[in-house]
Amino acid sequence: MLTDTKIKVHNFSAGPCILPREVFEQAAQAVLDFEGSGLSILEISHRSKPFEAVMAKAQALVKELLGAPDHYQVVFLGGGASMGFHMVPLNYLRPGGKAAYVNTGEWASRAIKEAKAIGDTVVVASSEDKNFSYIPKGFSIPADADFFHFTSNNTIFGTQYKQFPKSPVPVVCDMSSDIFSRPVNVADFALIYGGAQKNMGPAGATVYLLDPNALGKTGRKLSPMLDLKNHADKESMYNTPPVYAVYVSMLTMDWMKRQGGVVEMEKRNAAKARLLYAAVDALPVFQGTTAVEDRSVMNATFVLKDKALEPTFDALWKEAGISGIRGHRSVGGYRASMYNALPIESVQVLVDVMNEFAKKHG
Amino acid sequence: MLTDTKIKVHNFSAGPCILPREVFEQAAQAVLDFEGSGLSILEISHRSKPFEAVMAKAQALVKELLGAPDHYQVVFLGGGASMGFHMVPLNYLRPGGKAAYVNTGEWASRAIKEAKAIGDTVVVASSEDKNFSYIPKGFSIPADADFFHFTSNNTIFGTQYKQFPKSPVPVVCDMSSDIFSRPVNVADFALIYGGAQKNMGPAGATVYLLDPNALGKTGRKLSPMLDLKNHADKESMYNTPPVYAVYVSMLTMDWMKRQGGVVEMEKRNAAKARLLYAAVDALPVFQGTTAVEDRSVMNATFVLKDKALEPTFDALWKEAGISGIRGHRSVGGYRASMYNALPIESVQVLVDVMNEFAKKHG
Repeated sequence: MLTDTKIKVHNFSAGPCILPREVFEQAAQAVLDFEGSGLSILEISHRSKPFEAVMAKAQALVKELLGAPDHYQVVFLGGGASMGFHMVPLNYLRPGGKAAYVNTGEWASRAIKEAKAIGDTVVVASSEDKNFSYIPKGFSIPADADFFHFTSNNTIFGTQYKQFPKSPVPVVCDMSSDIFSRPVNVADFALIYGGAQKNMGPAGATVYLLDPNALGKTGRKLSPMLDLKNHADKESMYNTPPVYAVYVSMLTMDWMKRQGGVVEMEKRNAAKARLLYAAVDALPVFQGTTAVEDRSVMNATFVLKDKALEPTFDALWKEAGISGIRGHRSVGGYRASMYNALPIESVQVLVDVMNEFAKKHG
Repeated sequence: MLTDTKIKVHNFSAGPCILPREVFEQAAQAVLDFEGSGLSILEISHRSKPFEAVMAKAQALVKELLGAPDHYQVVFLGGGASMGFHMVPLNYLRPGGKAAYVNTGEWASRAIKEAKAIGDTVVVASSEDKNFSYIPKGFSIPADADFFHFTSNNTIFGTQYKQFPKSPVPVVCDMSSDIFSRPVNVADFALIYGGAQKNMGPAGATVYLLDPNALGKTGRKLSPMLDLKNHADKESMYNTPPVYAVYVSMLTMDWMKRQGGVVEMEKRNAAKARLLYAAVDALPVFQGTTAVEDRSVMNATFVLKDKALEPTFDALWKEAGISGIRGHRSVGGYRASMYNALPIESVQVLVDVMNEFAKKHG
């Protein structure tokens, strides 16, 4: 009764997004029969040994893929990175203390709003003056801040930090949309967090990779559900975790590992981005929307110089089986999201369409 | 490559728990190819029309199955009912106001702890004196409380309200473990909430069925992530919802509807409970752990009078393909969870094992 389907759609969705085909196959099989147990992954107890093994493997893979120091801990929660925006200042900002944030777009702005509701929050740099089309550089971070927060990749605006800011205070990074896309030096971060639904897995889980030594320093009394230390101590089992989202994340991370890890992901992602941005730059009908040096490898944003031609271009890429490249309303135009699992063949299909369009309408 | 599996395990797990076999089949198929789109349900945007339709259908089914008044709203969030324990007092308890709670076990206790951290919280009744083996009755609820909170079914202790308390103030009920098991008069409740992972679906989603007129009355400034009004206004799309958990919940509710709704569920659940409790009462080797009138139809708890025989009994039920009937550590003994999707045939297998055991060791 189950039918397998070969890729017939080139999925450039910004997230939730494409995952590896073999992950979908394993994930579907587990819904019917998890590891030959006769039970669906959806009906097993989160306290069963098989699921405890899944959780442990998922936690270990996060650390292994990113080369995290041994003492770092991994927490999986529901609620999305948006819940993280609330939890970060609760867990790292002392009453009377100060937080430092960079504003590089919609998600950074939401994180800042949450921090301001909790305590003194300084925006040390912002690219709002040019509709978030670049990454601010050369700013300074106050040495008396409790922590410094930034967003490594800006899904909506298509910008990405190529070098991470040097900080005199603990660094917290929302890596939702480029985690596992490249190597990072985890020891530089007190906390890396992100929603699963880009490179890591499906919607429904949020990962926190944290240095336990940087936790529990605020003296703030927290609800156990908002207390990262509680969740870390309880191995993400304080309450029922999002079982399936953790399972599929584990499968996806295992796939990354078999492919060669984040070093290989970085290579593939660079090749895809080169291919696409080369077309944007070579074809005069198109224009990139961000500073060239800050272009995201994950989300390439561009517009048609002649907006009136959009319906014509749209018809062309839809016919080619391309999905999800319409830009966010705050940028307009187009956004091609090229997460880890997107094959370069899909990018080639898009580039072919762009070339064909440019030939006719250039 | 996908293999279907007939039921070979009788799954009495307390939650996450058994769901209908046909739901697993639909849910597995959607992981490969969602509604013939060529895309997996795990890779589609939560803002795509097909998923918006899933969300709308899931919301409508909650209201339809429970016969909720038209103006009630349904919210799906990640985070579990444990996050609800924190959100309930934030959303319903005025600063300087008072909350009234009944303590009937572990989850009620956790809810009370969260409420106490936020404001004045009165425990109007408790069954802690007898290890939560009964439901308190005849208590009074202060007319000046902002709301009254109770837990309709106590998964760990196996007790359940047969009649809901009359309250002079708005009623909030954690129905995590018996929602959709029987008809309720939704208009009596300001809020019904619960984790999905019993009768409604897999782990990873939490449902809030609420009267919008009872919201936004505290004057409290809330994080948008903890503000039920924000999530209701944004149709559960303030941030990325737990897509797959909502989808599988929708499938499960659709199955309930096709089976005859909560009236039919109540009939089936009553038949299963009668069968099991009759064995507990008829066989002198076993003993129920709760007051007879408060016995849960969802979770039947019982012990062996001779604890030394547990390994013998355990070997017997395991051999019969039964899974998940070991009791929670705070009660010991056994707990047979008989949620909506558990067929009466599985209960019969357990009863047969109990009879066989009693014959040999009675």
